Amino acid sequence: METISCNNQTDVKITIPSLVSLKKKQEATIVKVNGVEVGGSEVIIFAGPCAVESMEQLFETAGAVKTGGAKILRGGAFKPRSSPYSFQGLGEEGLKLLSQIRKETGLPIVTEAMDTRQLEIVAKYADMIQIGSRSMQNYSLLKEVGKCGMPVLLKRGMMATIEEFLFAAEYILNHGNEQLILCERGIRTFETSTRNTLDLSAVPMLKNLSHLPVIVDPSHGTGLRWMVPAMAKAAVAVGADGLIMEVHYKPEEALCDGQQSLRPDEFNNLIIELRKVAGAVGRKIS
Amino acid sequence: METISCNNQTDVKITIPSLVSLKKKQEATIVKVNGVEVGGSEVIIFAGPCAVESMEQLFETAGAVKTGGAKILRGGAFKPRSSPYSFQGLGEEGLKLLSQIRKETGLPIVTEAMDTRQLEIVAKYADMIQIGSRSMQNYSLLKEVGKCGMPVLLKRGMMATIEEFLFAAEYILNHGNEQLILCERGIRTFETSTRNTLDLSAVPMLKNLSHLPVIVDPSHGTGLRWMVPAMAKAAVAVGADGLIMEVHYKPEEALCDGQQSLRPDEFNNLIIELRKVAGAVGRKIS
Amino acid sequence: METISCNNQTDVKITIPSLVSLKKKQEATIVKVNGVEVGGSEVIIFAGPCAVESMEQLFETAGAVKTGGAKILRGGAFKPRSSPYSFQGLGEEGLKLLSQIRKETGLPIVTEAMDTRQLEIVAKYADMIQIGSRSMQNYSLLKEVGKCGMPVLLKRGMMATIEEFLFAAEYILNHGNEQLILCERGIRTFETSTRNTLDLSAVPMLKNLSHLPVIVDPSHGTGLRWMVPAMAKAAVAVGADGLIMEVHYKPEEALCDGQQSLRPDEFNNLIIELRKVAGAVGRKIS
Amino acid sequence: METISCNNQTDVKITIPSLVSLKKKQEATIVKVNGVEVGGSEVIIFAGPCAVESMEQLFETAGAVKTGGAKILRGGAFKPRSSPYSFQGLGEEGLKLLSQIRKETGLPIVTEAMDTRQLEIVAKYADMIQIGSRSMQNYSLLKEVGKCGMPVLLKRGMMATIEEFLFAAEYILNHGNEQLILCERGIRTFETSTRNTLDLSAVPMLKNLSHLPVIVDPSHGTGLRWMVPAMAKAAVAVGADGLIMEVHYKPEEALCDGQQSLRPDEFNNLIIELRKVAGAVGRKIS
Repeated sequence: METISCNNQTDVKITIPSLVSLKKKQEATIVKVNGVEVGGSEVIIFAGPCAVESMEQLFETAGAVKTGGAKILRGGAFKPRSSPYSFQGLGEEGLKLLSQIRKETGLPIVTEAMDTRQLEIVAKYADMIQIGSRSMQNYSLLKEVGKCGMPVLLKRGMMATIEEFLFAAEYILNHGNEQLILCERGIRTFETSTRNTLDLSAVPMLKNLSHLPVIVDPSHGTGLRWMVPAMAKAAVAVGADGLIMEVHYKPEEALCDGQQSLRPDEFNNLIIELRKVAGAVGRKIS
Repeated sequence: METISCNNQTDVKITIPSLVSLKKKQEATIVKVNGVEVGGSEVIIFAGPCAVESMEQLFETAGAVKTGGAKILRGGAFKPRSSPYSFQGLGEEGLKLLSQIRKETGLPIVTEAMDTRQLEIVAKYADMIQIGSRSMQNYSLLKEVGKCGMPVLLKRGMMATIEEFLFAAEYILNHGNEQLILCERGIRTFETSTRNTLDLSAVPMLKNLSHLPVIVDPSHGTGLRWMVPAMAKAAVAVGADGLIMEVHYKPEEALCDGQQSLRPDEFNNLIIELRKVAGAVGRKIS
Repeated sequence: METISCNNQTDVKITIPSLVSLKKKQEATIVKVNGVEVGGSEVIIFAGPCAVESMEQLFETAGAVKTGGAKILRGGAFKPRSSPYSFQGLGEEGLKLLSQIRKETGLPIVTEAMDTRQLEIVAKYADMIQIGSRSMQNYSLLKEVGKCGMPVLLKRGMMATIEEFLFAAEYILNHGNEQLILCERGIRTFETSTRNTLDLSAVPMLKNLSHLPVIVDPSHGTGLRWMVPAMAKAAVAVGADGLIMEVHYKPEEALCDGQQSLRPDEFNNLIIELRKVAGAVGRKIS
Repeated sequence: METISCNNQTDVKITIPSLVSLKKKQEATIVKVNGVEVGGSEVIIFAGPCAVESMEQLFETAGAVKTGGAKILRGGAFKPRSSPYSFQGLGEEGLKLLSQIRKETGLPIVTEAMDTRQLEIVAKYADMIQIGSRSMQNYSLLKEVGKCGMPVLLKRGMMATIEEFLFAAEYILNHGNEQLILCERGIRTFETSTRNTLDLSAVPMLKNLSHLPVIVDPSHGTGLRWMVPAMAKAAVAVGADGLIMEVHYKPEEALCDGQQSLRPDEFNNLIIELRKVAGAVGRKIS
């Protein structure tokens, strides 16, 4: 049987597929991103700019987040934008900048591939492939990252149920790849004061149903810089295995999502506070 | 300026891009699908099975819908399925069956391409490319269909706003392709008694904002065979330029979406009723 | 057993209570509002201003809607407003104006009671009690209107499922009152270009599950005057037993909801078009 | 001017009314419930059964939550139930039991009034009036609790925006009552694995816009006993001024919401963990 009803313990009436299920595999999966382990006792910080814009921007921002405590650098070279008239990313040029910065900082790189053709190029430069929210049900892409042999970060679709999210993850596992991290990044609801509604209950729900690590993106989840610290603390308290946050050395000049990007000093201060919360729930941030 | 505020007449506070806008181009766009015109005074019926399954199934169903009044045949060869364990479609073999049936019935074919690589194969066989709901924000794919020179059917994402829908359409137009039909197919809401909530207000809204034709899919919009006729009549009354409906000669044996597929006799009877409604609102179904 | 699973024919997995159920009572309920029958072959038009503002406004508007074809006059004396600083209605003074207009026009009156204490006053003047969207789960009020012996118009809560709507109706029936009309008036979704999303699939769904008449409110359902005619036609086509629409003799001066109120001439023209649609689906508007 | 645009600092485009606004009154409001202060540095725990069922149930549960660390006892005597066939609460008999338990334990009582007539009875026995989620826009009730001179707990409607929530609160303040606590209790979204989606971003949002205290209800917010601890920790980390949780001495025998009620030992253990989280964010639970 390929799908199984969920744990009685959870009182949840959903059916999930077998490879992602905690019933099938009881121990937590540890995902290794160029030496960094996600899914263990440490809460891992992913940080960096929304989009790669220039060497200077990337160098300044990457240096700052490394100092602050980030273990993995995020940054987009191919950007999914609602408008064809918005900045679409630097493409392969951006990937090259990311790879140079990795050399200088030692930080592994996670960056998005938006379709099967981009996947080949992205895989040449990145340490981890990000599948974005709008691509969560791009099944052609899921099958290909399932075969690519690299760690994958799968973001929840803004309209995806927990059940659909785990079925999307199953596509990757059943094509051969278990090095997969799930990411809650906010869902679309009727509420408009925040960009999305960050569904923190997804963290305990996913961890009760699946062995895969779960991280949280409070930047896209709120769309508001000033709200990121509060939601980041809540995400650590609720049991997330990591956080992915947008940081920019000059947010007011950012080509993408500046209003939700932390400044380096805000990021530094936040990590100090997050260490206390992590300690309070038996985790740590090194 | 690349985006424009919407018509005062509409009292709607949204900003839409310029190429799709009725402000930029006042006359309605007519999309021609191998001789069939969509967007004129006639309401065009697209019908056929959810997925191509076999020659027999396709032959029986296509014959029935042609007799009933359908002008364009639908049928999926590549199927986006929530579970990797569900039937994924016959692939190129299915496209070949579709192309044989076109020869026999003369009906133009619309079928889905799920990613940029499939697009090349699908374009060899089809008369019109469908971009499915889950792909509405697959920007790589939108750019490619914008360049492909064929008519395109763009389905609204199940959680896409009208504004996002028109921005997705703009990607296709600004890559050179104005032969584009928009399709309302139901949105995701809190209501669960229907598969989706068919948002018929999208039809007058889109037609007030854009020059592009708009059709409605009451099959996915409800998920319930018995409800399709009522919603199809409402869609014609509200001003849709066409309907796309799932029909299967043996719904209880369908490999996909049988519970929302009409039987041939139900389809025939429905078209007879739809002709009356079309007449009542100054349209016709030939 | 007090609740029953719904009809197999409907393929819908919901449980509904017994008194409202079509399984329990197969013939359609006809609700009589001071001689006007709702639920038979005729589609009944309810029309009038959002709020009663003055004798002149009510007189001019009531006369116009009667001429146009309305059979029941709507108008609020007690208004539920989001802000305490908005016009709250004329209260009992408004009810007196409504009762005078009834004498002059012969039109029965439907008006809202917002709580149990208002119910007594409203019942003295009105022919039918409206329970508004925000009160659909005001169970104290539902029990009282269940005992009041007058026809009731129950509007669907903007956040209520079909199942919850029918359970709310059951409160009224099981307190002794079967003279109940259900009203779909738009639900809250992520879409913001319309005030609400008018869920027309609620009409066939409710009529498949229950024997109660169902009407539609395209004014609140869209919030946009120019969109009301298209959605009103769709509502008749989908099978509604009536329509309730806001009409104001001078919408730009309305104290409440002017932007969604039809002008008298727009209302007249709409009814002419609605008669054609009603005829096309085997109904009539006299 | 009666409404003001929100703080620039928040980057949020909403308009809120003046009395609730942090612009109008910069210091945080402290609400005093029979000696217990909510809104200061201490995080206050409200706990108790969903419904008052019997003296034994109330005595056992109240004793346990007091020992565990609760400062205010919750329990419903009038219950808003979706079905007329469900347990509707003990009514005034339940209020008497609550008042006896207050004498024995010294815990102040918060309990719901569902309409204006119940308000008089409830006010005789309770220390704080709860306005439930379904009543958030019962404006008659809001006006009356605004005049009643007692502390009020206002729960967010399950489909109310932040803006609507603050306008509902304004009704209470502008009728003379500033002793008001806001409660986030989960909103309705498309996700069905949890009973509601607990919107923890509402806490920092409300505290940035208003001077009123904000508490969180993780019991209704999740509907799942096993998930309450994780979400309670997150609520404290995000900055809530208190938590309201359902506890029952024998959840499997509860007449209402047993599946989301903590057992006394689970409650005790949770408070121990919550104290650590409170400490990590500069708060305390005594």
